[in-house]
Amino acid sequence: MATIGVFDSGVGGLTVLKELAHHFPKENFIYLGDTARLPYGTKSPDTIRSYSEQILNFLLEQKVDALVIACNTASSQVPEKEWKGLPVFNVIEPGAALAAQNSLNKNIGVLGTRATVTSDAYRKEILKTSPEARVVSQACPLFVPLAEEGWLEDPITNLIAFRYVQPLLAHEIDTLILGCTHYPLLKSAIQKAVGSQILLVDSGKALALKLEEAFENQKIQRENLDIGKGQIRILATDLSTHTEMLARTILEPLSIHSFEVVQL
Amino acid sequence: MATIGVFDSGVGGLTVLKELAHHFPKENFIYLGDTARLPYGTKSPDTIRSYSEQILNFLLEQKVDALVIACNTASSQVPEKEWKGLPVFNVIEPGAALAAQNSLNKNIGVLGTRATVTSDAYRKEILKTSPEARVVSQACPLFVPLAEEGWLEDPITNLIAFRYVQPLLAHEIDTLILGCTHYPLLKSAIQKAVGSQILLVDSGKALALKLEEAFENQKIQRENLDIGKGQIRILATDLSTHTEMLARTILEPLSIHSFEVVQL
Repeated sequence: MATIGVFDSGVGGLTVLKELAHHFPKENFIYLGDTARLPYGTKSPDTIRSYSEQILNFLLEQKVDALVIACNTASSQVPEKEWKGLPVFNVIEPGAALAAQNSLNKNIGVLGTRATVTSDAYRKEILKTSPEARVVSQACPLFVPLAEEGWLEDPITNLIAFRYVQPLLAHEIDTLILGCTHYPLLKSAIQKAVGSQILLVDSGKALALKLEEAFENQKIQRENLDIGKGQIRILATDLSTHTEMLARTILEPLSIHSFEVVQL
Repeated sequence: MATIGVFDSGVGGLTVLKELAHHFPKENFIYLGDTARLPYGTKSPDTIRSYSEQILNFLLEQKVDALVIACNTASSQVPEKEWKGLPVFNVIEPGAALAAQNSLNKNIGVLGTRATVTSDAYRKEILKTSPEARVVSQACPLFVPLAEEGWLEDPITNLIAFRYVQPLLAHEIDTLILGCTHYPLLKSAIQKAVGSQILLVDSGKALALKLEEAFENQKIQRENLDIGKGQIRILATDLSTHTEMLARTILEPLSIHSFEVVQL
């Protein structure tokens, strides 16, 4: 059994963890949410980079077999494919590649945090697969708090989604990347806002396919035999009742082995 | 001339700084925004307390003559009136007292972050002035991102304000405390949502009156003579262009001496 270390600034990356746990029900997962320092989306590139390195090193010490950066903001600052000998998977590359492969008119939209949009990371990745693509981005700072309020199916959320996607629709996109791990929680509102003709790309799903390949190519080694199979441990740098409740809601119906507060 | 140290988790406390600078145009101000670790509103009481202590000590080293906690979340975890010999003013006490004095039917509403509402700090303070008061609170996690998006006069903001104040209106409040320093930026939407009969209490204004008293009683000593008069220095633990722009917008038309990034 392999143990996969997954991290995000908060609970959003749990949408990625959920996809991975569905795909790999026998592997163990250690998830770290840097809740004491969230959100990363408003921070500077240097700060995001230094927090990310700290967490990669922390997960390394937990003896994981692979590292997953389930945070778009952090992914945009950590292009490495390897960290001190372990494979690293970020959440931008698979989503960008999937969007580039699926877009017919090569007009691709990206929704993300301010930091992800400013980093231009999706455009750079998309152009690797489709050099002719036109990429338009929109920062959506209200989506994370809307998702965390639980206003998932709500007229207010529909209105805000509509406001954010308007500038992208004007560019006649046919594919739209949900470039923040919280956004799959708002998928229904976003799909309504763009209409059913536009393909939404969920990076968590794209990442799961990428990991499947890595297991097949033995890029991820199954080494840890000492812990129970299919175990999900949730670590956080700060833990409120609201955070724990949110985490349970997102991961449902998966069962969580433990919640632990850690100091980095 | 005195130097007053003001801190908040981010830029919200600048609405308080602005009030203070209007009231005391000759004093100097050092403002620290802990932008690298914002928001405090979602963090646990222990974390908020430890961050606050760290910042009070930092401002102390800057040789300020008084400390202002311009953050409701931090204020709810720092009840002290003195910190290592310097007077400390928090943002909850003056707002609570002003609301208690002005409410006729003693039904008082409080809007705040999740942490401020959970701490119950406003209710405790209000009951000191009006033991018979009934206090009802509402957490409004979407207000800060709405303010930071700049959607101040906006139908979406009006709808969200209406949603948040509904439960309070059902309790027939006649006074409503804006229990987060960002909220004065949304004052117009909140006033529309509650109607013109309900008094909105802005803690920054209440705090300015409190400081006036402290200068008169010489609780604040004017000791620092070495820096220019009426100078506003903005320090931040992380500084993006968006943060700097937001800060300038909030403080307009005041002039800012400098922006500096600091490590705590």
